[in-house]
Amino acid sequence: MFDTTKKIGILGGGQLGKMLGIAAANWDFNIHILDKADCPASLVCQSLTVGDYNNYENVLDFGRKMDLITIEIEHVNTQALHQLVKEGKTVHPNPIALDLIKDKGLQKEFYIKNNLPTAKFQLFENEKAVINAVKNSNLHFPFVQKTRTAGYDGKGVTIIKNQHDLENKLLKGACLTEDLVPIKAEIAVIAARNERDEVTIFPAVEMEFHPEANLVEFLICPARISTLIAAQAEALAEQVIRAFDVCGLLAVELFLTPDNELIINEVAPRPHNSGHHTIDSAYISQYQQHLLAINNLSMGDTAQKQPAVMLNLLGEEGHIGKVKYEGVENCLALGGVNVHLYGKKTTSPYRKMGHVTIVADNLEVALKKANFVKQNLKVVSF
Amino acid sequence: MFDTTKKIGILGGGQLGKMLGIAAANWDFNIHILDKADCPASLVCQSLTVGDYNNYENVLDFGRKMDLITIEIEHVNTQALHQLVKEGKTVHPNPIALDLIKDKGLQKEFYIKNNLPTAKFQLFENEKAVINAVKNSNLHFPFVQKTRTAGYDGKGVTIIKNQHDLENKLLKGACLTEDLVPIKAEIAVIAARNERDEVTIFPAVEMEFHPEANLVEFLICPARISTLIAAQAEALAEQVIRAFDVCGLLAVELFLTPDNELIINEVAPRPHNSGHHTIDSAYISQYQQHLLAINNLSMGDTAQKQPAVMLNLLGEEGHIGKVKYEGVENCLALGGVNVHLYGKKTTSPYRKMGHVTIVADNLEVALKKANFVKQNLKVVSF
Repeated sequence: MFDTTKKIGILGGGQLGKMLGIAAANWDFNIHILDKADCPASLVCQSLTVGDYNNYENVLDFGRKMDLITIEIEHVNTQALHQLVKEGKTVHPNPIALDLIKDKGLQKEFYIKNNLPTAKFQLFENEKAVINAVKNSNLHFPFVQKTRTAGYDGKGVTIIKNQHDLENKLLKGACLTEDLVPIKAEIAVIAARNERDEVTIFPAVEMEFHPEANLVEFLICPARISTLIAAQAEALAEQVIRAFDVCGLLAVELFLTPDNELIINEVAPRPHNSGHHTIDSAYISQYQQHLLAINNLSMGDTAQKQPAVMLNLLGEEGHIGKVKYEGVENCLALGGVNVHLYGKKTTSPYRKMGHVTIVADNLEVALKKANFVKQNLKVVSF
Repeated sequence: MFDTTKKIGILGGGQLGKMLGIAAANWDFNIHILDKADCPASLVCQSLTVGDYNNYENVLDFGRKMDLITIEIEHVNTQALHQLVKEGKTVHPNPIALDLIKDKGLQKEFYIKNNLPTAKFQLFENEKAVINAVKNSNLHFPFVQKTRTAGYDGKGVTIIKNQHDLENKLLKGACLTEDLVPIKAEIAVIAARNERDEVTIFPAVEMEFHPEANLVEFLICPARISTLIAAQAEALAEQVIRAFDVCGLLAVELFLTPDNELIINEVAPRPHNSGHHTIDSAYISQYQQHLLAINNLSMGDTAQKQPAVMLNLLGEEGHIGKVKYEGVENCLALGGVNVHLYGKKTTSPYRKMGHVTIVADNLEVALKKANFVKQNLKVVSF
């Protein structure tokens, strides 16, 4: 039932929480946030509880006041979520899946156990064990190193190409290493599922990364891949969301190899950067779909209305402090340029401060405008 | 300059204020509302000042703390706005235009003075003077009677067809009467203008009214009129917004006669019911355009992406009290159905509780879905 009296609690009030909040505001849904004061979502929620979503007591106290609990970031206190489930609360995504996904080692083992395609990997207790493995020829350059936890927005991932990298770039702590797979394209597919096991899939998107910040820079939808591969990617996403038994959204990041093989990179059980464009270009947005799915409602039509290009607005290098936006007016005047500024009070280099989705009748026009926006819209400090 | 530090004050926090607030939240604009506690816009603004926008002191105190003042309802205390202009504040729309528009008598006289087409009319001090005019054959059935002030959402307007209506339906107080013009279609055009005298025009829309509530029921965009008439309507709207010297939005409601003449019915210098669909179907929404225009920024592309049908969600007859929505899930599942619920706590018969915009590749499909929504989505009480 479409029930606007149900209290929905979100752990985290960043940009994803804010966009969930805006979607909820349009439906008169009753949204409550647990995060720091002044977080972006605080502007658009019914109430903000100031607290730490990594703190057991904070999450438990907050969750007990809610009818339904969800997240906008996976690095939350899942112990409290398990307790809330025990107490009869509905928690989506389920905390068992969250525990698997938060730890990239467990996530990789889950793929193997479930016959889901992923790059070969090894687990290590710490960085010294990695150095030893190289020494003993159990690990060969080049490889990818990922910390098992605390990775977010491209942090916690590094590429080790040679002895010099091994000595200077290795990340500390428990980690995994992966073969450096040759990649033709990076794509992402967002699936949504409700408690009745209904699944909907958003069209596959193609990602281009910023070379230094390791953050998505351009996201292109529909992905420039064959319809066959798109269909395979979408089928794989459906398989993955069912395997994790997740209700709500699951974003599945995939590598496409030169042999047209699809390999799972990683997943996120929440609204995702690769779904921002759906606000402006799809019949239903990922935020709306998440709200429908976690409320066990029928979901909306994921089709694209128009081709779209999304770019993240990152804080400019050399700018730290109170945020200021340059060039917005000229970009808006292009037409089809949808600017979303998250309302973070301060900027710093490469911080995600907003995004822009450009829609047009064809991808070529959208890409041209996206390049203009990239060059002209700047996030700086006063 | 696109300046997110500027404090923008809005008089009124109803649904129009809420939708302005959502548009502002996406751009990190700094929005403050003057209205009652718990008003719809209170959810999405930086601050709510609880007060009465018809009270001189309330408006003055509120306005003095702002850099830019605008409205979401024209029935506000304009005396305070004149004072704020004197004190150097930017007020859009300008209070001179507001005074003219608030009083339908002055509004009609303004059209005559500016050679703008409008139905013939007479002014009366009160309802007794109307009765006398009929008695003395200075006024003939049928005619339209409008109160000079306090008309809103179809209130303050009645049609007097005969002696029985004259005795039972006449509205009290200062009023005007208009010839009952034969009408082929009712259309509306929304213009936007900035301080540099740049004007943009949204495509003409066609309105269908609810027979009893005298509220727009279906709004169809693009209007099913010839391109010539659409162009004439759009040119007329441009003329009217310049005549009133309004910055921000001006919605111009027009009658199309069987002779294909366009006649101005009335105007509203603010976001308007006939522009709701732009959120979901145009490259820029009326709310975004208003924010750009009052900030003296270049405006966005008003073109439609897809045909759209908008319907208001009115409180069902026989239902008064805490609001509940029925049938939302089935409507959303149709695809292309964009539901906007305003978050009013209580419903009453014919109260505007939300709206739905249906977009589709062609108008026929959108109209079919709109009829389904009309029959299935109900606003009732617990």
